[in-house]
Order: sequence, then C-alpha cells, then structure tokens
Amino acid sequence: MSFAAPAIKSFQPPRRTLMGPGPSDVPQRILDAMARPTIGHLDPAFTDMMEETKQLLRYAFQTENKLTFPVSGPGSVGMETCFVNLVEPGDKAIVCINGVFGGRMLENVKRAGGIPVVVEDNWGEPVDVAKVADAFAANPDAKILAFVHAETSTGAQSDAKALAEIAHKHGALVIMDCVTSLGGTPVLIDEWGIDAAYSGSQKCLSCKPGLSPVTFGARAIEKVKTRKTPVQSWFMDLNLVLGYWSGEGKRTYHHTAPINSLYGLHEALVILAEEGIENAWARHRAMHEQLKAGLEKLGMRFVVAEDARLPQLNSVYIPEGVDDAAARARLLNEFNLEIGAGLGALAGKIWRIGLMGYSARPENVDYCLKALEAVLKA
Amino acid sequence: MSFAAPAIKSFQPPRRTLMGPGPSDVPQRILDAMARPTIGHLDPAFTDMMEETKQLLRYAFQTENKLTFPVSGPGSVGMETCFVNLVEPGDKAIVCINGVFGGRMLENVKRAGGIPVVVEDNWGEPVDVAKVADAFAANPDAKILAFVHAETSTGAQSDAKALAEIAHKHGALVIMDCVTSLGGTPVLIDEWGIDAAYSGSQKCLSCKPGLSPVTFGARAIEKVKTRKTPVQSWFMDLNLVLGYWSGEGKRTYHHTAPINSLYGLHEALVILAEEGIENAWARHRAMHEQLKAGLEKLGMRFVVAEDARLPQLNSVYIPEGVDDAAARARLLNEFNLEIGAGLGALAGKIWRIGLMGYSARPENVDYCLKALEAVLKA
Repeated sequence: MSFAAPAIKSFQPPRRTLMGPGPSDVPQRILDAMARPTIGHLDPAFTDMMEETKQLLRYAFQTENKLTFPVSGPGSVGMETCFVNLVEPGDKAIVCINGVFGGRMLENVKRAGGIPVVVEDNWGEPVDVAKVADAFAANPDAKILAFVHAETSTGAQSDAKALAEIAHKHGALVIMDCVTSLGGTPVLIDEWGIDAAYSGSQKCLSCKPGLSPVTFGARAIEKVKTRKTPVQSWFMDLNLVLGYWSGEGKRTYHHTAPINSLYGLHEALVILAEEGIENAWARHRAMHEQLKAGLEKLGMRFVVAEDARLPQLNSVYIPEGVDDAAARARLLNEFNLEIGAGLGALAGKIWRIGLMGYSARPENVDYCLKALEAVLKA
Repeated sequence: MSFAAPAIKSFQPPRRTLMGPGPSDVPQRILDAMARPTIGHLDPAFTDMMEETKQLLRYAFQTENKLTFPVSGPGSVGMETCFVNLVEPGDKAIVCINGVFGGRMLENVKRAGGIPVVVEDNWGEPVDVAKVADAFAANPDAKILAFVHAETSTGAQSDAKALAEIAHKHGALVIMDCVTSLGGTPVLIDEWGIDAAYSGSQKCLSCKPGLSPVTFGARAIEKVKTRKTPVQSWFMDLNLVLGYWSGEGKRTYHHTAPINSLYGLHEALVILAEEGIENAWARHRAMHEQLKAGLEKLGMRFVVAEDARLPQLNSVYIPEGVDDAAARARLLNEFNLEIGAGLGALAGKIWRIGLMGYSARPENVDYCLKALEAVLKA
C-alpha cells in the first residue's frame, strides 16, 4: 500500500481580535518568545527558566506554595490533576455546580471513584455559601470541597474565601478552579487558604492555550503522599511529576516538557510582573466599566447580577430577534472579531464577551462596541 | 499579605544543536509558524486547519484511519490515552518490556485496572517474537498486546508486523508506541494492522514537544464504544474528544486546543509531505551510516545489534575512563551540543545520539563527530 503526500500548504491564520471566553489576544512579545530556538528539557538553561516560571506563578497565585508549576496540558488536565491526586476512591466530595465547569468537576470526582454531593445553583449566580454550609452539616465526613471561582460559562464569580472557611471548619480540602480569574481579578491562594487550584494560560495571562498553572498547599501534598491507592493517572501523578518540577535534589525525567510553550508562559508572567498584578486587576475592572456603559447604551442586559459579575467575562442576553450564529458569523467575517457563544443550557441565549489579559484594552472595547452596533442595527 | 513582583527578565535560550533522544532541532519555518497570531479553537479557519492536520498525520502514519489526530499533551498523554480507552478493568494485557517505555506501558496497564502479563527482553534487544507467541499460548484470553516499536531508551527497533500478526491470530488488539519511529523509519499502520498507536511531535517530526499524534483503527473504536465501564480519565475519554476532533456533525467544545503548537505541527507535517516520507526515511538511514562510520573511527561501540538498530537513535557505550556527566557538560558548554544520557539501567553506561528529523543533516553529523573527538581526546 502506498499513500500519496497531501498537497497542503503552510497555514496562514487570519488576524482576529479575540474577545470570547479565551483564548485572548496574544501580544507579539509572547508570540516572539515562543519562536525562540528549542532547547532540551534537561538543559540547565531550561531548568533555570522553570525555576523562574515557578516563582512568577507564585506571584500570580499570590502564594508561597512551593508546589506551583504549569501542568503540560490544557486547563482540563490541570483540573483532572487536582482531582485524581486529591480524591481517593470512596472519598466524599462536595461539588458546587453553577455552570459548565462545575459539571466537569462532578465528572472528575465520579471518575476518580469519589462520592459526590452536589450543591446546585442557577447558572449565572454565584455559589450559595449557605447551601454549602448545609451540605457540610449533612455530610460531616466530606473530605473535599470543589468549586469554580470564576465560571467561564456564565461570568459569575463566587466568594472563594467564605467557601474555603466552611470547608476548613469541617477539615475538608478545597479545590478551586480559577481558570478565568487568574491575572484578571484577585486570586489570593494563601489569604483564602485554598489547598489546590488550577488555571489556564490562555485567559487573563494572554498566553497561547495548552498549559495549566496549578498550585498545591501543604495539606494537599500531605494527602497525596499518604494516599492508600496509587493515583489512577500515570501522567498526572504528582508523586512522579514532582521529580521533574520540584527542583529539589536531582531533577529526573518524567515527560518531555512543552519547551516553546513554556517560553511563552514565562514571557506572559514577566509581562504580568512588569505591570504589577494590582494594576492588571484595575485594568480589567476599568475596561469592564467602559464596555458595560457601551453595552447598556446598545440596550443589552447582563446575565449576572452586578455584585457577582466578572469584569473579564461579560455575559449578555442576545437581543430578541437576533440570530445568534448569523450575528457571530458577521462579527467574525466582517470584523475579524470573535466573541463567545453560550454553552450548555445558555446556548443560543447569551453571548460571552471576554476582556482578558491583552484583550482588555480601550481600543478592543471600542472596536467591539462599534462592531456590535453595526451588526445589531442591520 | 502582599507579594512583591519578581524582577525577572525575558528568557533568551542559548542556541543549541540537539542530538539527544528529542527534542530535535526545530527548523525556523516551524518556529515561525508557532509565532503566527493566535485564533480561536472553534474558528472555521482553525477547524479547517485541524482537518488538514488529520490528513497530513494519516500520511505520516500511512493509514486511512479516520480517527487520527494530535492529543493535546506530550507523548506520555498519547500513551495514556491509548491505555485508558482500550484496557478495561480486568482485561488481560501482554506487555513487552525491553526498555524504559515498555515499563511505562506496564504502569499504564496497572493503573487502568488491567491484568498485565509481562514479556521481558534485555535492554538494547528487540522484543522476542517467539516469547510473545508463547505468552499468547499461555494466555489465550489476553485482549491487548502492547509493545514499543522504537525504544527511545536503547535505540532498538522491534518487528511490529510480526508482533501484530500474533496478536490478531489470538483476537487481541495491538497498542504500539512509535514515538521515536514516526517520520524516521517506516511506520505502516495499515499494512501492519496496528489497532492503536501514539507518537510525539518532538522526535523525527522536528516540531516542539507537547503534542502526541495518535491513530485508532476500527476495532479499537469498537472497543471504546462498547466498554462496560466509563473511561477513567475525563480528558482522555475518546468518546468525548471525538466530539471536537472527529469533524463529523457539529463540532463541540471539549477543551481549548493548544492553537499555536498545532500551527507548528501542521508546518512540520507539511515539510514531511514536501520531502516525501520515503525520502525522509532514506535521509535518516544515510545520516546514520555517516555517523556510524565516524563513531567507529573514534572507537565507539554500538549497544544494539546492527539488524535491530534505529538509524535515528544511536546508542553507544561510553568509552572506558570517560566521565559521563563531565563529557556531556563539555559538549553542552563548549559546543552547544546536546546528546542524551542513558536512562534507567543504562544510566552512566551509554550515550544516546539522536539523528531525528531536522537534526538528521550532514552538517550536524560532522559537527557532532568533531565535538566528540575533541572531548574524548582531552
């Protein structure tokens, strides 16, 4: 058998303005960083850069956790890394669902052999702290509380500090999804006492997708080290990953790190440190105010109540009579502008307008409002 | 608590010549491709590129398998994707171990709840076909045969066609690791009847690390679809991944694809198609002959017998009296040349000199021989 070589040309992507739920616009500095020469994953120059990346990530997460590093996979792998390491078969886990990603956490608990206790809230609302307290009262043997800090599917932010307090009162570990919040709104791992958290590179850090920063505190590491059963995933087993990323003792090969992607993440984190994380938070807030004023002028309504609204992810109802897919296709084709569709129960009902990282700039806000106005008018 | 922003500068990697076991040298065309503007993972321009990538990968794997795509993670994730989907708890799996990566397969079988039957061969030798036949005779209920086509830890190549024949005679599925062979020596998925195979982007395809091309045939898909238990990994569950990568029906969001890395893989595969895969195989063979002549002149001995030797991974014994780490440090520091150390039982005893993808060029061979000569003389 012989196969003909396909006559396919190099790919030239169009230049878009990315204002969906991620990926966000990647600045040229980060694109340039990814194009630097590839070196080996055990090269001393590379492992020095790994140590810098860990230090920069600690700043982004506002933590002193030694075990803070980027998982070599998308946010979903960061999520699964947290669950397969911290949930042992038979462990009861309280899982809060107020959007798509809480539902994904539930799937993870089940597949790790955990016993889930679900706390549900309406999509678009934050996790109800009182319901979580009730769930712990009814399940004092729960070992894990899992919730999404910033629901990418709705744009709602939950009170991470209050939720973590309840969990700790009951001796449970806290797993937090901060995929959409890291770098955009405060994520205070140490102040809130979060035991394990995961994020993504392609949201408010404005790096390309494919890496998942994670952080684990002392209690979480203790749990991993004292498991009775092996972690079901070889790739995600922190006991093994640590040999490569810990930086303590001899660095041992686990898997080949995604070298050039890590150049990009390093650069994204250098940019964040240069700006200062408080300034980054303030910028996301200011851009949100500017976008909000314009959207309201266009008569659009927000899905999430003001006090729980994420500045970096603006969910709005699609105006009546507007064809969802056709309008987004026009934005993409005529304006090279990407905004996000609704997910799950909100598909066809809402749009998600992202102001993440490098996309949170005045010119992007103006451009988006102008494009929306043109498309909604027609 | 407040954290000071670390004063860390942009990372400027040194320019190395990569002649270890991967990553290999990444050509400028691929580096440039990765620096193109990021677009969304559901952008029609991007999903068209995904279809092209699948077509190009079918050519690389020499297969018509529809389900041929790059997993969004390193080779280890491609490996685990094969095992968690195809091994159900209680399934007996014959696992061939003749190096590090066979051992990793065994770990995967165990963690997926399979019952492993191990066939061991000496490191540096190919898998013994007769032993595998015996293992099937003794275990007619085995459902899986797993072996490494090209052992990256030793440089030995096994007879994939003969091994697959035995497995099929017994109605078992074949999982093959071709991380180091794809693009360097013939990998004939359809001709050999391999049911599932995984590779890596950073070996003979010369792309940056972090993606794992995989391919699944009809029998493998049937097995996944008729499992009695859910796949233990949410991220790797092919039933879910298919919704995004299959290209049939509506494409549904599963995870955010690593956009720019996929630009790089697409470009790497375009380069392979331009060269023609038979020419690529011939080039690896020719460069090996050139390197071999030079190494023998330096008095170095190969670990693997000639008939099982991989042209793209040359394992040689470290000459007596030479300090392993010191010699490799000199190669790196004085010549910017990376070669590979031994792994596992072969650590400190062998070097692994890679001639993979773009590293398989006459100037690299000459440079490597000159550097080795200088370091071994001193």
